[in-house]
Amino acid sequence: MNTNSQEDRVTVSIRDGIADVRLNRVDKRNALDSAMFSAIARVGKELANDNNLRAVVLSGNGASFCAGLDFGGFQAMAGSSGASKDGNSPIAESMEVDSQNAGSMESGAITHLAQQICWVWQEVPVPVIAALHGHALGGGLQLALGTDIRIAHPTTQISMREVHWGLIPDMTGTLMLSRLVRDDVAKDLVFSARVISGIEAHELGLVTRVSETPLEVAMQIAREVAGRSPDAVRGAKALINRLSNAGAAEHFAEERRIIYGLIGKPNQVEAVTANFEKRPAKFEALQN
Amino acid sequence: MNTNSQEDRVTVSIRDGIADVRLNRVDKRNALDSAMFSAIARVGKELANDNNLRAVVLSGNGASFCAGLDFGGFQAMAGSSGASKDGNSPIAESMEVDSQNAGSMESGAITHLAQQICWVWQEVPVPVIAALHGHALGGGLQLALGTDIRIAHPTTQISMREVHWGLIPDMTGTLMLSRLVRDDVAKDLVFSARVISGIEAHELGLVTRVSETPLEVAMQIAREVAGRSPDAVRGAKALINRLSNAGAAEHFAEERRIIYGLIGKPNQVEAVTANFEKRPAKFEALQN
Amino acid sequence: MNTNSQEDRVTVSIRDGIADVRLNRVDKRNALDSAMFSAIARVGKELANDNNLRAVVLSGNGASFCAGLDFGGFQAMAGSSGASKDGNSPIAESMEVDSQNAGSMESGAITHLAQQICWVWQEVPVPVIAALHGHALGGGLQLALGTDIRIAHPTTQISMREVHWGLIPDMTGTLMLSRLVRDDVAKDLVFSARVISGIEAHELGLVTRVSETPLEVAMQIAREVAGRSPDAVRGAKALINRLSNAGAAEHFAEERRIIYGLIGKPNQVEAVTANFEKRPAKFEALQN
Repeated sequence: MNTNSQEDRVTVSIRDGIADVRLNRVDKRNALDSAMFSAIARVGKELANDNNLRAVVLSGNGASFCAGLDFGGFQAMAGSSGASKDGNSPIAESMEVDSQNAGSMESGAITHLAQQICWVWQEVPVPVIAALHGHALGGGLQLALGTDIRIAHPTTQISMREVHWGLIPDMTGTLMLSRLVRDDVAKDLVFSARVISGIEAHELGLVTRVSETPLEVAMQIAREVAGRSPDAVRGAKALINRLSNAGAAEHFAEERRIIYGLIGKPNQVEAVTANFEKRPAKFEALQN
Repeated sequence: MNTNSQEDRVTVSIRDGIADVRLNRVDKRNALDSAMFSAIARVGKELANDNNLRAVVLSGNGASFCAGLDFGGFQAMAGSSGASKDGNSPIAESMEVDSQNAGSMESGAITHLAQQICWVWQEVPVPVIAALHGHALGGGLQLALGTDIRIAHPTTQISMREVHWGLIPDMTGTLMLSRLVRDDVAKDLVFSARVISGIEAHELGLVTRVSETPLEVAMQIAREVAGRSPDAVRGAKALINRLSNAGAAEHFAEERRIIYGLIGKPNQVEAVTANFEKRPAKFEALQN
Repeated sequence: MNTNSQEDRVTVSIRDGIADVRLNRVDKRNALDSAMFSAIARVGKELANDNNLRAVVLSGNGASFCAGLDFGGFQAMAGSSGASKDGNSPIAESMEVDSQNAGSMESGAITHLAQQICWVWQEVPVPVIAALHGHALGGGLQLALGTDIRIAHPTTQISMREVHWGLIPDMTGTLMLSRLVRDDVAKDLVFSARVISGIEAHELGLVTRVSETPLEVAMQIAREVAGRSPDAVRGAKALINRLSNAGAAEHFAEERRIIYGLIGKPNQVEAVTANFEKRPAKFEALQN
């Protein structure tokens, strides 16, 4: 079976119960735009309802897994504008427009769309293994953290990059990160927004295994899992998730509350503008 | 003091406030049968109420700590039967009979008997140190994870083996595992059911220390703890357990709900039958 | 800006949004006495309300970060007294007097003063980095665990020392420790009260990084963080803390309940007395 979705932003091929899902926006290193958000969420939902499914492998076509949010729109504008305190700069307006789709929530959901593309892999009741290479930055890393097991090439560039842009990891990332690393490591990675290699990511706990051939290893794990009783595997994932995802709905709501207090505000716009202008940012003190 | 229990399935020797508890079914590598379940739970309960106790060391006589559930009954039948969809195969019936004792719950308990043999070591208010060697498989590993500190011989064969039998770790194992390892490691170990050495178990966090003489090291730790103020040690265990065992009752209920949906069902019987017939299993898709 | 507090027990110097906070009781290795408790809590509260603040570095002047509770009062008495069962020994009385200030709680607080000197660094909304050297023992270690990130000199002597004195870590330490290390490691460290080096502390997860120049590294991290959008950094700390500090109020209350059942009781007094008399302690069995 082959299902190609939404302008081929994501391709899916299912064989022997294993779904081979690939981000497919090669010219942009699989950066997340509005169409990519919708495509990933739709594919995940379809797989979550497939009773024949045994395992999923999620990877990226081309040079990278996923370079994160598509900042192309901002970049074009960065030359012409500065941050304005009323938030009416072109950059701020662009962010608000771009986040409208990402921020949409279905009735009854505990996630908005940008969170859902990460969370849906926890809703898929079978094991989901991510194969990382090239870049897994920002939203791309959060997407990877939403899967169950991560295999990374040693040279993969990995970062919780959001604070660099005046943002926070708001796509389920703080919950997912807290399941993997100590409190101080999570804070260090998020505060510094530093880029680490697949090797360091493995040492810190963001990555399950390092391999020169991450997609092959991910497929191998998927085949092993697919040989187990599907009832037992689904039951085990449900039980482990029950613990590690406790309180997810409330936490995701808090992620949304905090991010909406940041997007388009003077300090966030200044972070983006200064980055594109390659100068140190000048931030204001807190207002309240 | 020496208390030998229930056909000597478990022996207890208390000296200087330290209980030396040994699984004692040497010819079966201390595999868990109905009598062993009862004996471990009874010994644990006695120790939990001993105000003179300072520490407990739990180990296995003979070649192994504990090889897990006793599948002897199944094995004898495996040649003569196949799985039947109505669950009336001899294997399925045998499982139901065997699980009747393991599934019994005392009034007011948060565990059934199979969970209780692991959980009771958290209820024992003094430190419990397990010394592992040979095998710690399936229920045997869950028993070890129920103790506070684990010392293992480097060659110990360790596995969350349940999924191999079409089951899940249902003896408190998913909660206990989640206190020790990252979410992805827990899933990898449970999904794959792979057997790891004491050395790898230490690297992953299942084992506190590796030693060529695990029982001696466990006894040494017990002696050190026994030299501390018993009030302080009990208070410290209570406080740490308060955090790491939060929500235990609800989680154990969920373990029971999921395991009762697996035992004796076609895919679980097929897992067992295929294992004994040394052939790949043929599983059915989910029914719902 | 320079604010020197309460007999200079703690000094604060703020430059470029970074508060350089130093424990300053050099002749006592910055041991915690009543004045030190008050000074740390007051400084923390001031910093928590400073809207211009970007980061905090907490370190100790002189040879050590902090050697823990000041037992000087006890030591003077240890020669003349033994434990009495009614708790009326000079040692027990001294402990009760000394703990009156440490045990005071402000209306609406979730901590008493001794807990507050650790907890306030979680309330400070910007990153707090501790630089450890010399000693970080008992209350000194708990103070360090209350910060977000810890940089330690490799030779730092680090210990959850409380059980050695017949006490438990009651200054938020069991919650903070549980965010960093596995359940078995926490128990091993607390039960044994053993002293580990900065290097082992790093391997176990108590310390984020080891450095020959911990204060310089801490300042470097603070400067990097201070270059990020302060709104984003504060939002990220709030989100991560939301998870790792869940249930803090109830846990701190339980810490207080347990410690008040220990202080000044026969076994606790015996622990202190035996330590000062350099003889093995003789503890009583539990009373209930």
